[in-house]
Amino acid sequence: MLIAQPQSMQFDAALSLQSGASIRGYTLAYETYGTLNADKSNAVLICHALNASHHVAGVYEGQPKSEGWWDNMIGPGKPVDTDKFFVIGVNNLGSCFGSTGPMHVNPDTGKVYGADFPVVTVEDWVNAQARLLDALGIQTLAAVMGGSLGGMQALSWTLQYPGRVRHAVVVASAPNLNAENIAFNEVARRAIVTDPDFHGGHFYEHGVIPKRGLRIARMIGHITYLSDDVMNEKFGRELRAAVDGVVREGYRYTTQDVEFQIESYLRYQGDKFSEYFDANTYLLITRALDYFDPARAHEGKLTRALAAARCKFLLVSFSTDWRFSPERSREIARALLDNRRELTYAEIDAPHGHDAFLLDDARYMKLVRSYFQGIAGEVTA
Amino acid sequence: MLIAQPQSMQFDAALSLQSGASIRGYTLAYETYGTLNADKSNAVLICHALNASHHVAGVYEGQPKSEGWWDNMIGPGKPVDTDKFFVIGVNNLGSCFGSTGPMHVNPDTGKVYGADFPVVTVEDWVNAQARLLDALGIQTLAAVMGGSLGGMQALSWTLQYPGRVRHAVVVASAPNLNAENIAFNEVARRAIVTDPDFHGGHFYEHGVIPKRGLRIARMIGHITYLSDDVMNEKFGRELRAAVDGVVREGYRYTTQDVEFQIESYLRYQGDKFSEYFDANTYLLITRALDYFDPARAHEGKLTRALAAARCKFLLVSFSTDWRFSPERSREIARALLDNRRELTYAEIDAPHGHDAFLLDDARYMKLVRSYFQGIAGEVTA
Repeated sequence: MLIAQPQSMQFDAALSLQSGASIRGYTLAYETYGTLNADKSNAVLICHALNASHHVAGVYEGQPKSEGWWDNMIGPGKPVDTDKFFVIGVNNLGSCFGSTGPMHVNPDTGKVYGADFPVVTVEDWVNAQARLLDALGIQTLAAVMGGSLGGMQALSWTLQYPGRVRHAVVVASAPNLNAENIAFNEVARRAIVTDPDFHGGHFYEHGVIPKRGLRIARMIGHITYLSDDVMNEKFGRELRAAVDGVVREGYRYTTQDVEFQIESYLRYQGDKFSEYFDANTYLLITRALDYFDPARAHEGKLTRALAAARCKFLLVSFSTDWRFSPERSREIARALLDNRRELTYAEIDAPHGHDAFLLDDARYMKLVRSYFQGIAGEVTA
Repeated sequence: MLIAQPQSMQFDAALSLQSGASIRGYTLAYETYGTLNADKSNAVLICHALNASHHVAGVYEGQPKSEGWWDNMIGPGKPVDTDKFFVIGVNNLGSCFGSTGPMHVNPDTGKVYGADFPVVTVEDWVNAQARLLDALGIQTLAAVMGGSLGGMQALSWTLQYPGRVRHAVVVASAPNLNAENIAFNEVARRAIVTDPDFHGGHFYEHGVIPKRGLRIARMIGHITYLSDDVMNEKFGRELRAAVDGVVREGYRYTTQDVEFQIESYLRYQGDKFSEYFDANTYLLITRALDYFDPARAHEGKLTRALAAARCKFLLVSFSTDWRFSPERSREIARALLDNRRELTYAEIDAPHGHDAFLLDDARYMKLVRSYFQGIAGEVTA
């Protein structure tokens, strides 16, 4: 079993952000797995999505249930094999899992950031990640990899640092959010911001947490992560079992209590999330999603935006993902092909919707394994 | 111009509800258009969906902008021609637009119902509508018609009162909600119920309205009413114009303010809705949607459930409706065909999502017109 060891790196110099603001005296939490080879050519950076962290693989000492969020994908003998690669998981700025975020003190004011934490973008995260690699003495990545929002970071790496990436693995991602994606983010944000316990984002000093808003945000999120089919299969119209475990036959006729299993599931997910996720972080991360749009600086032309990329690509999408549909991955693929870039594109026929990128699917795992075996062949042992 | 005249009918006798409860001393608001013929064979009942009322067609005297919600469909010379048919619009029990609802006084307690308003189902509404027809002296409907939740009522009419319906027009509807539909309803309800101004559904006595929750509920609703395509076409990733009307070039980098046009649209719709819609009504109506499931009493077999129907059917669905997709209408069609019922089924290729059932689409309008011309031929002039 891979034992993970969380680390952190302090950065004193100010990092200029896309918004024009800057941030200084910040910390990035990260983990590494495997061994960096002598010429430092076997590093793989893993970028995380909304609700994840630097804890990508393995477990913490004495905590057998603390598996990293991509532990099925990354580890000794796994598709991204830590016996061959030096894998780095990094927690992004603004997160609530270890790196500097809204709940920390702003060194310029001596006060907790709260809602004043600067707006960070995918590009800013990539710049911060590049600084971490500098500090680790890694010039070039064998690969950068991520799913969903993590895939956006991987894609952005190829544009911001084309000379530092050999391969980009972009899973269940998109070249930008469409109007419906932004709409779901906005409803979630409104639920948080209008929760009276949000206090304009300065709830820490009031000793409260806007849990109502966080619950709603998470419930909306879960609906969009799952496919219609998998929801029908898992929950359908099944009624919630009674407290004593007996499945009821008839309706209870209630508007406020749980009646259907799907309601019970969503409430549980919402409750759990509201216990550990930071409300300001939720706003920041969904906004980073909204803002990502490399084509924007090129009159909306993705082909022109992706002309900067130099590396090889593996793009993966999932047939039932309606949040980041295969069509969005195909847009990236087409723009790369227009630029005569080398790429592998796979559309995996999987029932699980957007969540599929985190789940075990034999074809998906085999594909990533095979792709990384290819990369391993290019790297000094 | 058709001038509408709201009417109301008081019902003193108790109506037994599906939940086992009953309601007495209630009022139904309704409107009628056109003239009932001598043998009372030309009546058409229109059933409304979530956010609508008995005001189906025409305008109120001196209020030129007060068009009924299906005024494009119903009126003199329109597809449902009030020169030929006697059309009845009725507001359902539990609504907030005129019929007895949660904001009214319970005659049994002398107190405002609030959250104690009995849970009402599609079947209950149909029973209440049948009583209204009794009072109007109408035994048999030339047609019952509705879209979405209104279509569920039309379908239920054919099962509860098979001898009283000649035609059922079921538009953009479904034989029940799937897990995803219920999930969206549940998130909306949770937003309302957890709003501190909801006060367990007894907010009237506190002089407040749970507007935060209503706004969130409506924003979620609007996302599901529109198709992905129409959202991208109408809003895309366009930024909101500045207050002075100038379209901005760049991002403002804000997590709490409006940045994209789609956000502005959703907030506007949410604000507007929270000004006039009742929170308890929202819970009741979404629950009626959740509960509707005629196959439930027949081991989930829709074919057996629909065996009770005797009338002819027009079923219409819209290609981009992902809330009540064409597949759900096809389920109804197949179950009717299994029972050798006569039906017309049309899948309209329309870009507008679920909203399409309320909008002008030449093929849709022509289809309904032609179907009702057929009905007119069966009816004494």
